[in-house]
This record gives sequence, structure tokens and C-alpha cells, in this order.
Amino acid sequence: MFDEIRAAAERLEGIVHRTPVVTSRTLDKKVGAEVFLKCENFQRVGAFKIRGAYNAISQLSAAQRERGVLAYSSGNHAQGVALAGRLLGVSTTIVMPTDAPVTKLAATRGYGARVVEYDREEFSRREVAGRLLEDKGYTLIPPFDHAHIIAGQGTAALELVEDVGELDYLLVPCGGGGLLSGSVVATKGLAPDCQVIGVEPEVADDATRSFYSGRIQTVRNPPTIADGTRTESLGKLTFELIRQHVDAMRTVSEEAIIEATRFLFFRTKLVVEPSGALGVAELLSGAVEARGRVGVILSGGNVDGATMAAILA
Amino acid sequence: MFDEIRAAAERLEGIVHRTPVVTSRTLDKKVGAEVFLKCENFQRVGAFKIRGAYNAISQLSAAQRERGVLAYSSGNHAQGVALAGRLLGVSTTIVMPTDAPVTKLAATRGYGARVVEYDREEFSRREVAGRLLEDKGYTLIPPFDHAHIIAGQGTAALELVEDVGELDYLLVPCGGGGLLSGSVVATKGLAPDCQVIGVEPEVADDATRSFYSGRIQTVRNPPTIADGTRTESLGKLTFELIRQHVDAMRTVSEEAIIEATRFLFFRTKLVVEPSGALGVAELLSGAVEARGRVGVILSGGNVDGATMAAILA
Repeated sequence: MFDEIRAAAERLEGIVHRTPVVTSRTLDKKVGAEVFLKCENFQRVGAFKIRGAYNAISQLSAAQRERGVLAYSSGNHAQGVALAGRLLGVSTTIVMPTDAPVTKLAATRGYGARVVEYDREEFSRREVAGRLLEDKGYTLIPPFDHAHIIAGQGTAALELVEDVGELDYLLVPCGGGGLLSGSVVATKGLAPDCQVIGVEPEVADDATRSFYSGRIQTVRNPPTIADGTRTESLGKLTFELIRQHVDAMRTVSEEAIIEATRFLFFRTKLVVEPSGALGVAELLSGAVEARGRVGVILSGGNVDGATMAAILA
Repeated sequence: MFDEIRAAAERLEGIVHRTPVVTSRTLDKKVGAEVFLKCENFQRVGAFKIRGAYNAISQLSAAQRERGVLAYSSGNHAQGVALAGRLLGVSTTIVMPTDAPVTKLAATRGYGARVVEYDREEFSRREVAGRLLEDKGYTLIPPFDHAHIIAGQGTAALELVEDVGELDYLLVPCGGGGLLSGSVVATKGLAPDCQVIGVEPEVADDATRSFYSGRIQTVRNPPTIADGTRTESLGKLTFELIRQHVDAMRTVSEEAIIEATRFLFFRTKLVVEPSGALGVAELLSGAVEARGRVGVILSGGNVDGATMAAILA
């Protein structure tokens, strides 16, 4: 898998941003460590998701590319697939519930995707997507449980370690585990002694329970502000990689997530979405005894105005 | 003055951040130009003000430094002076009205300054400051109308042109004119053909009127959200430099300032205070026919939660 991440990094060069690493004296002082924030909030589409989507779509056969791709997502993956498709000249169809935020629908269409809306009361997205995949011959681009997606997402951590050197710890948000599994493989490949820790909300702790129990656990519609981590469970592939390579999983409270988002706003002047602030939430709430050089992946910055207004007020 | 800016840059090296320059495809497309955002929101104390304050305090005599310095400000200048004093081992006293935002009072004290509060109903800040200057022998660090302050502020534009090369336009927010006058001297020194344009709110257009009339005009408590530009007028020195070197002054509506602050938040993921967004407001409202390579100074990122919540909601 490490070689696949290297190959993904080559494919992505000049396509995605090599995002900057930001440091903050205030954060270092508060935490008692040297913290390196990898700013995927500055990534194209505002989150790391373009990395995996582009890496996956670019490896499809000519026939698959001709027929087009499909994804179901109401979040950053939708925009990642839409933009990757546009950049590669592949038509994209995104299945989204009719009650998805208007801004997300508009942004996804803005990147050139065809959006198919469905009523969540009447259908499941799998039904809707399944019918389209069969009728049209689209290729499904899954949000996380696919080797090409995982390899693409791993390039963010690869860049971080290349840019700042070896780390003692790396903190990574965990939803479906695509970013975390890619990050751990990339990091251990370059810096085997680095402790890689996944972070998720207390109220959406399925990956933590899965990690410690050794079996995939689920969660249903968890009431977390970190909407990027509301996925039902890890995937088969991501679970295996996480179980095998990750050093620990930690959970943080909703209050800690909000506090971290506020800290990043007021003290570092970075717009980070709540899911993207999980690593900083973990550091600030002090549960991890992170010492030395600590990397944190700020996974995205797509937060709507009402949510951020509530966080700031 | 250009040589003084060069000298200031040497003094500030390793003390202030050489802030990054951010670009945005979306912004370039919207504007039809190549735009370079100089991110002084990432500067220490969250705004460019540390540059001038440090440059001024570091040039005081040993006797002056021993007695300490004083500033009156309820904004970013207060924090700039407080931090510069701490870094130079010079005690700082800041005169602030009792009704200044609690966060600003706390932040200024947090940098180690002594804050003297006064009741705006009973005294003017000049009276309060005047008494302290006389009694204690403090040296006043003015917010903008001083050659050392202007030279320090000019180092941001100097870095920008050094880092990205020649520009066709540079847009700079204008309050008391310290940043604008320093920026124009720095820019014309390196790139004489660059058109330097000052931007202020329509409802606080004293500098624009001063520039075009040839006499210093004033404004009283202008109702602008761009609190960094509420100064009553340009100073003698800043007016002279602006009148002599700046190419044009422009004003923008409150709506345009809010829209620019939102754009920077949602599209570039940068926290920029309304005063810092003036240049982008000008570009997005399209009044300036900026073509080619356009620099914009984002002067700061210190916005309180309630103001930003109102802007985002």
C-alpha cells in the first residue's frame, strides 16, 4: 500500500495543492509540544477528498471513463468526485438526498456534476444508486473503502512528513477511515516510530469500539457536529488497515470539538470544519500525552454559515 | 523612506512572521486577474501592527526604553505595542476606554501590558494619556503618524513584492494611513510601475476626500463594520506620503465589505477581519479595473465572534 501512496502522489502532482503546514506558538504553549497543522482546509474543494477521488478516477479504463462515474454523498466526497471528474473529462453523477443543504447541492453542480436527488423517506440511496449503476453502466466511486481512495487520501500525511520531517505523533480524524488508513500507511512508511492516533467524536465512536473489540461496530445517525464522521462504520479495508497499523483511537466530546474549532478560528485564523478540528480537540482536551513533534491533519474547511455562527456566538 | 523600510525589514527579521501569500483560482476567475493575498491575518497579534510597533520601540534610546512606552488604542495597535514591548523588555501601558471589548482588554493584558481604563463620558483619551506621559516619562507610540511606524508597516508590501515579483496593482486598506503610506513607498521602490490604490469604507471616506481635495478631511465615529478604519483622519506624515505617491483612492459599501469577508471565509478558508477585507471588497465590487497581477494586503484577522456570526448568518 505504501508504494500505491507514492504512485498516487505522483498522479496528484500539479493537480491538487501541496497544502501548507501551519504552526502556532499559542497552540505549542498550550499543548507543551511542537504542533504541525497540515491544512487540507486549503485543499481544492476545501477538503482532502479530491486526493482519493482523483487517484481512483484516473485509474479507470478508457471504457469506464467513457461511461462515467457515480458517487453517493452529501458531503465533501461529492465535491471531490465532481471536480476530479471534470479535471479528467469524465462525466459524474452524484446521488444526494433532496434535503441535503442547498449550498452542497449547488457546489456539487458548480463543479459540473449531474446531481440526482432522491427522497429519503421513500428510497435508500443504495437503491437509487444501484438502479443508475445498472441502467447506465457507471462505475461507483466509493467514499472510503477502496484501495485507490485510501492511497489518494494517504498523500496528505506523506506530504506532511516529507515537509516537516519525522514526527512523534500524528493525529487524524476518523469517519469511514479512508483518511486514517491512508495516513497511517504513509506515515509508518516514512517514520516507523511515529505513533498514529485516530480521533472521532464520543457520540460517533464506532471506529474506536471496532479498533478495541476487533470487530466492525456501527453507529446510526450520531448527533455530532462533526458531520464528516457520521458514517455508519469503517469499511472492510479501512478496518483491516487501521486495526493493523494504528497505535490508538481516541474520542472527544462535542464541547471539545466546538472549542477546537473556535481556537483555530480565533488564534490561528483558519476556517476549519468541526470534523477537521478533531485532532486539535484531542490535543486541547489533553487526553493524549502528545510530546515532542506532533502532526495534526486538519481535514477540511467546509462549514456552513449557520453552523459556524452558532459555534462562534 | 524606502531605505528606512529596508532597515525596518532587517530589524523585524526573525521577530515577525514573513506571512504567506495565498492565491485562489475562484477569486482569479471572478476578478479576471491574478490575485496575490498577503496574509497579515496570520501575523503575530493577528495583524500587521506588530511591524510598526516593534520597529518604533526598538529604536528608542536606552533611557526611553527604561521608562517604558504608552499607547492609546482599543484595537490591533494596542496588542502590537504590548507584544513588541514584551519582546524588547520594555514596559508598556495601554490606555483603553472601560467599554472596550472584554476580549481586547484581556488580549492586551495577555501580552503583558498594563491597561489603564478610562471612562469615555468623563475624560478624553488624550487627557488620560497626557497625564501619564507627563507623570511617568513614558514615550508615546502613536498608531500611524510616525516615520518608524510607517516604515515598519511598509515591510509587509516589501515582502509581498519580493516574494511574488512585480505587480500591476496593489490594493491596501486605509484607516490612519500608516499601512498605506508604508506600502506605497515600499512598492514604488521595488516596482515603480505598480499602481497603488488605497481602499476605505464609503461611510468613512475621509482619506479619499483628503486625497482628492488636497487637504486633510475628517470623519466622526463612522458607522462602518471595518473598525480598523474608524480613525478620524490621516496624519500629517501619512497624508503627505499618500498624496504624493498613491495612484488612486476608492471606497466600498458596507455590503461589499461583508460580502468580501464572507467570500474569504467560505472560498479561501481565511479568517479576515472586515477592515482586512477592503481590498478584496474593491476587487469583487469591480470598481477598480484591476488587470494582470494584483496584490492585496489582508491587514488582519481579529474579528470578534458576535460580529463574525452576524456576517456569516
